[in-house]
Amino acid sequence: MSGGGDGNSAYGHKAFQRSKSHFTDRITADGRDGRPVTAGRYRLVVSRACPWASRAVISRRLLGLEDALSMAIADPIQDDRSWRFTLDPDGRDPVLGIRYLSEAYDRRERDHGTGVSVPAIVDVPSGELVTNDYQQLTLDLATEWTALHRPGAPDLYPDRLRDEIDTVMADVYEDVNNGVYRAGFASEQGEYEQACARVFRRLELLTSRLARQRYLVGDTITEADIRLFTTLVRFDAVYHGHFKCNRWKLTENPVLWAYVRDLFQTPGFGDTVDFDHIKRHYYRVHTGINPTRIVPLGPDLAGWRASHHREELGGRPFGTGTPPGPVRVDEEVPARGRP
Amino acid sequence: MSGGGDGNSAYGHKAFQRSKSHFTDRITADGRDGRPVTAGRYRLVVSRACPWASRAVISRRLLGLEDALSMAIADPIQDDRSWRFTLDPDGRDPVLGIRYLSEAYDRRERDHGTGVSVPAIVDVPSGELVTNDYQQLTLDLATEWTALHRPGAPDLYPDRLRDEIDTVMADVYEDVNNGVYRAGFASEQGEYEQACARVFRRLELLTSRLARQRYLVGDTITEADIRLFTTLVRFDAVYHGHFKCNRWKLTENPVLWAYVRDLFQTPGFGDTVDFDHIKRHYYRVHTGINPTRIVPLGPDLAGWRASHHREELGGRPFGTGTPPGPVRVDEEVPARGRP
Repeated sequence: MSGGGDGNSAYGHKAFQRSKSHFTDRITADGRDGRPVTAGRYRLVVSRACPWASRAVISRRLLGLEDALSMAIADPIQDDRSWRFTLDPDGRDPVLGIRYLSEAYDRRERDHGTGVSVPAIVDVPSGELVTNDYQQLTLDLATEWTALHRPGAPDLYPDRLRDEIDTVMADVYEDVNNGVYRAGFASEQGEYEQACARVFRRLELLTSRLARQRYLVGDTITEADIRLFTTLVRFDAVYHGHFKCNRWKLTENPVLWAYVRDLFQTPGFGDTVDFDHIKRHYYRVHTGINPTRIVPLGPDLAGWRASHHREELGGRPFGTGTPPGPVRVDEEVPARGRP
Repeated sequence: MSGGGDGNSAYGHKAFQRSKSHFTDRITADGRDGRPVTAGRYRLVVSRACPWASRAVISRRLLGLEDALSMAIADPIQDDRSWRFTLDPDGRDPVLGIRYLSEAYDRRERDHGTGVSVPAIVDVPSGELVTNDYQQLTLDLATEWTALHRPGAPDLYPDRLRDEIDTVMADVYEDVNNGVYRAGFASEQGEYEQACARVFRRLELLTSRLARQRYLVGDTITEADIRLFTTLVRFDAVYHGHFKCNRWKLTENPVLWAYVRDLFQTPGFGDTVDFDHIKRHYYRVHTGINPTRIVPLGPDLAGWRASHHREELGGRPFGTGTPPGPVRVDEEVPARGRP
């Protein structure tokens, strides 16, 4: 998740440690945590800059949950009170009526003493935070919210493939999703080198796998692809330079570059990506590694729409289902954030 | 030149300004400044990290001046007294007997009140600095030191091409050689964007030129190629990430990437390049833009020795001359600095 822990507070004598999610209530079909899946009751709060939140943005689109689960988009630049709704009129989220996401945390638990992070789901009637458990949140969208999925929604976490998906996701999490942060926020050379080497070792392994098959597990998109995508789509734009993961750019790896473009061009993936939010967030918030706060002009994004030829490997993105329809007009990524 | 001005003192409210060379005596064939070209009298002081000094290192090799003009190599990491000879036994240059290059500046002029920079030429008998005029220094090696050139040395500044060479070099200086520094040391977004855009606009123009011809001017290597090379060879290693010149990597531009590899593989160019010195200098010295002082593992240098096929464009690197012989054993770049 993206919260205060991604900023300067990540510096110190210890290696970068991602904080655990503090609020882990689950919204389930049977409502066993007192939070039953209900259309219109919850609000998903995200930042388009954040890879962890972007998983949920993509899942929501792929599953057609837009009407059932509304979405608030925070400003990519946090201030000292963390994520804020400065992109909305009067700086307030129009549904929750709050200016800072932290207000929902406070309603849930006064003096919660935890970092405010996205993705978060807020219970609209009470205004209370329900969960910021980024690891569980999308799995629940895929498996607990099924009654509200659109017709033709893909099965992003198919029962028969869960063991394999879990294994792949665990390695990707450790070495790639979180690995780039460990490299970028390292305070010592050795710590950085170890993290960076692991990032590229894992990417090499993934390259071998993806040279033979269109998707990470099975022959359709799954949660595993979503989680790899949200890191890869940021790779050249921020992790390569800002986090020093610079053995090569993704554009220099023909397999991964085609894989990520294939996903980018699949409805529900690229249409959620805002490169402007991504770049401004990383380069302006992390003053401990970019004290000038200057946001680079590069990389050139022209290639994202180029042919990838991954169809030749077989596989169907949505299996027996269908792609999602167009993005809701009020959720379109502004032109300045698109390639 | 590389001096204090490249470090943190470059920050401020004004745009980055390269300081003028303070000592501009010329060493000439006729000795009109009292500094006649003489074998064994002068010592060239360089850092292999510095692009301005590296021009002189390359010219000296191409022209075969190694025996006539000895060379001192400074540690790539300056301290608060600037360039130092900590790579030598007891931390002293064995010929000049000094620990800091600044001592030669002091002998020349007490309270000289100027930054210490490389390249510098020191008069060995007196221990005095003669010149740190990086723009004139290599032109004089090419045109005034001719009596001491090796047999078969190329003409790096041919009379009939000087106008064209000067024009090309002026544009390359403004937009590329110095442009990357203006981008990297910008303290404001607009200033950075202007400099970065100019870097890439000029590189695009150079790409058109070099798509048709093997070298920048005429059909042999000249001073213009040396000056472009010393920036391009550092481009992906430091300017792309550290200076945020990241629209694309050189490896993504087929023409420039082949051009710079062609030169790299030409005796006298690549055999002077120490990527370890380059990376450690930029990333460890400029704490204003890299406060963690962490030096990236990338980029992968494997491609530098790959075929470039530039011979197909015609041209002969040394014209009617010959390539220089092998590097002197005591001047070989250590293995850790080589691709």
